[in-house]
Amino acid sequence: MKENAPGPPVLIVGSLAFDSVETPDGSVEMALGGSAAYASIAASYFAGARVVGVVGDDFGDEHMRRLQAHGIDVAGVARVPGKTFHWRGRYHHDFKGRDTLETALGVFESFDPDVPAPHRESEYVLLGNIDPALQLKVLEQAHRARVVAMDTMNFWIETARERLAEVLSRVDILFINDEEAFQLSGQSTVLAAARAVAAAGPRYVVVKRGDCGAMLFGPDLTLFVPAMPLLRVIDPTGAGDSFAGGFMGHLARTGALDRASLGGALLAGTVLASFAVEAFSVDGICELPPGAIAERRAALERMIRL
Amino acid sequence: MKENAPGPPVLIVGSLAFDSVETPDGSVEMALGGSAAYASIAASYFAGARVVGVVGDDFGDEHMRRLQAHGIDVAGVARVPGKTFHWRGRYHHDFKGRDTLETALGVFESFDPDVPAPHRESEYVLLGNIDPALQLKVLEQAHRARVVAMDTMNFWIETARERLAEVLSRVDILFINDEEAFQLSGQSTVLAAARAVAAAGPRYVVVKRGDCGAMLFGPDLTLFVPAMPLLRVIDPTGAGDSFAGGFMGHLARTGALDRASLGGALLAGTVLASFAVEAFSVDGICELPPGAIAERRAALERMIRL
Repeated sequence: MKENAPGPPVLIVGSLAFDSVETPDGSVEMALGGSAAYASIAASYFAGARVVGVVGDDFGDEHMRRLQAHGIDVAGVARVPGKTFHWRGRYHHDFKGRDTLETALGVFESFDPDVPAPHRESEYVLLGNIDPALQLKVLEQAHRARVVAMDTMNFWIETARERLAEVLSRVDILFINDEEAFQLSGQSTVLAAARAVAAAGPRYVVVKRGDCGAMLFGPDLTLFVPAMPLLRVIDPTGAGDSFAGGFMGHLARTGALDRASLGGALLAGTVLASFAVEAFSVDGICELPPGAIAERRAALERMIRL
Repeated sequence: MKENAPGPPVLIVGSLAFDSVETPDGSVEMALGGSAAYASIAASYFAGARVVGVVGDDFGDEHMRRLQAHGIDVAGVARVPGKTFHWRGRYHHDFKGRDTLETALGVFESFDPDVPAPHRESEYVLLGNIDPALQLKVLEQAHRARVVAMDTMNFWIETARERLAEVLSRVDILFINDEEAFQLSGQSTVLAAARAVAAAGPRYVVVKRGDCGAMLFGPDLTLFVPAMPLLRVIDPTGAGDSFAGGFMGHLARTGALDRASLGGALLAGTVLASFAVEAFSVDGICELPPGAIAERRAALERMIRL
């Protein structure tokens, strides 16, 4: 699947799940999802990906093979008796919001991430949107980490603020959407929120704004990338995870953390997110034909050549 | 006020009003506002501006002098017995929405735009957000118009769709915010909405997305500019009008309608809108010091140099 020479592998911890999703135009039942699935597939186009996660005995081999077909190392995925994490949700008209109808944690409830020995050497680490306590556990095992990014969500901001602060103080990059940034910071503009959040630790704060685009705030650096304009959205689930995966994969490939590398990472994340929302489950980012990513990236670059 | 050699004048029709605005952090009573006030002041930094509008006998000379101090030609502003248009509104927490508390049309109710003879030769015309029937009247008088832009709002989409369609079919550029674009087109993505709206007439559709930025859709051309990141917003009133004024002023100055000119216009509009929201009334865009506009424009350009 990888179009070019891959960068060093990205260690990705997160959920592997079955998603049942209903949108105004369609639905899907028990399809492969979870933050680690989206992020690792997205990252695989740029770098190696190693997943740490847990699935139940209902997680068929075909799902594992789908990840492996992208060169993803699943040695860190534990398969334990019980049911795989299942999320059921329904999107509102025009995707303006969504309701969670069911969250069955299953084996994810007792997830205790154990990073395989060789994976502990990973220099690039993406802590997907899971309990900050688990994010910390992974971080402690990844003792060679050079660039650590994390994702989070409103649930952890509300219920685990202290542990979240601990992770925040130890990461280089935070992915967060605008509403969550306002919630976490108590600020009311994106710039004020990003500054407040950065003061809590992360050198770079990436604020995701859905179909508007994403902004990266760093020391003496502000970058913006618009979202890819699309005629139709099928299912927004996993867009943020695909963004984070593409972003980290690109960083790993370039090996740098300079302006050009971060700008390219924003573009890579945006392109992968745009493919993700054009289909249910991970279908939109699986087996992308050669050139598809470069083509969208070029279209985005043209849009901002003012 | 004009920093450089101005372009040909832009004819601007719209409201001149008194705004009483309450925000979570402050308020202002009976301050100068209205689409034509914001747009003409914004345009004046790039080109000449000629206003067509109406005020009551309560519209003090100090307000007119404020416009004239920006070199704005107010020969087309009728002063008639009665009260000037007054809008009273209250913004919600974090400016996520606003309530109109009072709309007293006053002399604006019987506004019948009469464009002074010399102004009928204007080549650049901005039809501010007023009744489409009045926009048409101005358009008919501006017989030498070369580039016509219009603004509109949900009220006209709901109540005057046919007349609106007639104006749409006769303009080159439409300014519209994302919600209005969805409402007007029945589409649910910005790209789909812009295409549907463009099919109704305007060659260029500029979709304004508040603090996210703005997109321009044209034949074989899509451009995006992010909004200027701000630490604090004081009053969003007039941001869209300032955007439109800055945009048209820049177009008039360049005299072209090519990619570079449109890109520069997006930047100019965005910069003026960013100044507008940093103060109540037109205070944010009045008497901007030399270099202030160029400085923000350069900051925006750096943000999208990925």
